[in-house]
Amino acid sequence: MLALGRLRDRVIARVGAEVVVDPAEAGRYARDDGALGPFPPGLVVRPRERAQVLELVRLCREEAVPLSPRGAGTGTVGACLADHGGVVLDLAGLGAIVDIDARSLLAEVEPGVITGDFQAAVEAMGLFYPPDPASLKKCSLGGNVATNAGGPRACKYGVTGAFVLGLDVVTGAGEAMTVGHRSIKGVTGYDLTHLLVGSEGTLAVTTGATLRLLPRPAAAFTLLASFADEAAASDAVLRCLHAGLRPAALELADRTCAKVLVESGSLAVQVPAESGALLWIEVDGDAAGLDASLRAAAERCREAGALAVEIAGDAATRDALWSVRRALSHTLRDRWPRKISEDVAVPIGKLPELCAAARAIGERFAVDTASFGHAGDGNLHVNFLYDPASAPDVEARVDAAVAELFAVTVALGGTLSGEHGIGLAKRPYLPLEQDASVRALQLALKRAWDPAGILNPGKIFP
Amino acid sequence: MLALGRLRDRVIARVGAEVVVDPAEAGRYARDDGALGPFPPGLVVRPRERAQVLELVRLCREEAVPLSPRGAGTGTVGACLADHGGVVLDLAGLGAIVDIDARSLLAEVEPGVITGDFQAAVEAMGLFYPPDPASLKKCSLGGNVATNAGGPRACKYGVTGAFVLGLDVVTGAGEAMTVGHRSIKGVTGYDLTHLLVGSEGTLAVTTGATLRLLPRPAAAFTLLASFADEAAASDAVLRCLHAGLRPAALELADRTCAKVLVESGSLAVQVPAESGALLWIEVDGDAAGLDASLRAAAERCREAGALAVEIAGDAATRDALWSVRRALSHTLRDRWPRKISEDVAVPIGKLPELCAAARAIGERFAVDTASFGHAGDGNLHVNFLYDPASAPDVEARVDAAVAELFAVTVALGGTLSGEHGIGLAKRPYLPLEQDASVRALQLALKRAWDPAGILNPGKIFP
Repeated sequence: MLALGRLRDRVIARVGAEVVVDPAEAGRYARDDGALGPFPPGLVVRPRERAQVLELVRLCREEAVPLSPRGAGTGTVGACLADHGGVVLDLAGLGAIVDIDARSLLAEVEPGVITGDFQAAVEAMGLFYPPDPASLKKCSLGGNVATNAGGPRACKYGVTGAFVLGLDVVTGAGEAMTVGHRSIKGVTGYDLTHLLVGSEGTLAVTTGATLRLLPRPAAAFTLLASFADEAAASDAVLRCLHAGLRPAALELADRTCAKVLVESGSLAVQVPAESGALLWIEVDGDAAGLDASLRAAAERCREAGALAVEIAGDAATRDALWSVRRALSHTLRDRWPRKISEDVAVPIGKLPELCAAARAIGERFAVDTASFGHAGDGNLHVNFLYDPASAPDVEARVDAAVAELFAVTVALGGTLSGEHGIGLAKRPYLPLEQDASVRALQLALKRAWDPAGILNPGKIFP
Repeated sequence: MLALGRLRDRVIARVGAEVVVDPAEAGRYARDDGALGPFPPGLVVRPRERAQVLELVRLCREEAVPLSPRGAGTGTVGACLADHGGVVLDLAGLGAIVDIDARSLLAEVEPGVITGDFQAAVEAMGLFYPPDPASLKKCSLGGNVATNAGGPRACKYGVTGAFVLGLDVVTGAGEAMTVGHRSIKGVTGYDLTHLLVGSEGTLAVTTGATLRLLPRPAAAFTLLASFADEAAASDAVLRCLHAGLRPAALELADRTCAKVLVESGSLAVQVPAESGALLWIEVDGDAAGLDASLRAAAERCREAGALAVEIAGDAATRDALWSVRRALSHTLRDRWPRKISEDVAVPIGKLPELCAAARAIGERFAVDTASFGHAGDGNLHVNFLYDPASAPDVEARVDAAVAELFAVTVALGGTLSGEHGIGLAKRPYLPLEQDASVRALQLALKRAWDPAGILNPGKIFP
């Protein structure tokens, strides 16, 4: 506390009072979009210029105060929370789209730019930035970089990291540096860029990014297929992938989700009442190839026993379908008092087994489950839904169910997290997947970037 | 030398005499496919089992002897050469394709598998491994991982790293570990996999890799377009990219190359005698979309002023066209006594400037140049061609031309190496692109992986 008070004074003296956020606002930094917290920070700073970030990191280093960088706070694993106390570095003030280079198909951005705003800006120029986390209207590009955020379109285009060519960062040692390149390819030295992407603010603070762009696809269609159960839907996913279709998105929703959506009447197309699983398939590209892709995708769904296949060609219906999909997490949260959302990923051939395991684990521990997500990548959001007041042992049962899900995922050759990261929430489970030598090596790398251990201490590693 | 003799005895005692390569063979380890060397190694070991790699690294560490891992030796920057003396670790003996999982679209391989053999094996199962370095009939998957090898198809599919999901490695500290995941997505901890990919054997030795596969494209066509000069050809490249075409490959050859090829009569299709630049465009995918892509690509070439556009639909003509392209490097080497081949990459919008600069630098320093390569990625092989006996100052002029090429590349926002790496050959130029802090950080990361500095000491960093 003494150190924090002194740090605050030094920040005001060296950087300026305008970067210190009013303590009355600090409450909104105590949580993210997940279940952890509250962890009220001791001090929140919101720089407006890149050079201020450098000063702030150096001051934290000198005062040995922990610093947690924060984008828009839409993460779910607590990676941006100040659980050790200390400083939250809110990067929302660095919100400039510095340059969009249509000729070289790249852009320079600051970390606080809202992902959806950036997409709109490049699309207005006939360009395309594919990464589309569900929170894209609120989340920031810097946060996407810190978590290597995914989203439905990762199925065809890859996750955020696939679009990050280079980064401007401030290391935990208080050095500003530029890593990566502006060319598409580059093997000059180690790939520091992709070591930083997904490192959850534990190695360096992002102050700028060079992002790769694509030309905007000429057209897109969305297909919504309904199935009797998840087994049939995941069979359709594998048939599409094995047939070499490269849909922009291939998203599955299980029985619980299908029931909630059918009951809500929110789906923009007609769905049979008995639907036990849904599949969103988006195809995009040249108008010429699209018809064939769409027909092929529909055919694969029918082979897998689809109850119905509806095609949304007009923009309004497509938008409506995707809005429902993006809102699914919040729709579930509105129906159950508590929701624990995991994001395990398995080799795609194991998707049916993962779907079945998620359901079986819920039944075994008597916890409602709802699974949905990026089936084309083998990445499923398995949600455990409950009312903490419903039974004295419910929290213990949920904890056991989560642990069982992770154990099954690893046994299937999968990983704890496909896109949310580890943060605080999954930290205790890391040893299930990574042995002591791999963990020790990562901590050694962290010491190289952040010798004093001030950046997000204790995150990721148990 | 004393340490090497003792190491040899210990290798025989602990691992077995059969892993020690006959000194009479050592000569073929003194060079790679580049201009550097000879650096005859003190000892060459060729393990046959993964566990032997672990033992060998540990012995080198105990004896403080440098170890240079080597794939098939087709690199061009000297990264696998024992310039510090010591041991060459030939990984050709670990040559098993352990598993091809068609359902999950992935494979487990050992590092010594020849890339072309692996492609043939997966294609026989209806699958596809896109990375296609020019040396694919000789190079190894482990070497491709070490250099993050590219190739023509990187234009659509990405370089080797885009297909590496996980690695089994032995660190310089003598620890065996598995990093990465078998799922398509994964953000559990740091991305160690892609820190290792392209690290040129300086951090760890690869003993196994989990590779991502795709279904084999239904069809492919190759188009060869000829232009009056490189400016028109690179204009066509940009028109294709800006139109959103995603050709599998988009390869340019400049006036020198075009002249050599037209004179040799080796091109499988008709090319106007006055051609001053050539463009290979390959489109692949669904038969339905292909026609449209092909027409669009041809149209973009004509807009850029193509002299002729020839389409190769049959497999024999396509193979012939690509053989000529793949042989281009050797074709040039046969015509000039000495060839220095660079592989600079620039933001794609700067491709015309790079082509022009390469020609101007050759003229300025009176050195023949030939440029060709992966134009769709902004990655050009600029070759300096000369006869060392032609003039006393020719080597000095070539050195100056190379330095000038790098300076211009960096000024255009580009990078020293798009796919060959830095190794020994480009080590002196690294400071042109990366400042002292970025270099120091990489050396700190190396110490985390290889505390005693035994793995490929002195490579990459000046």
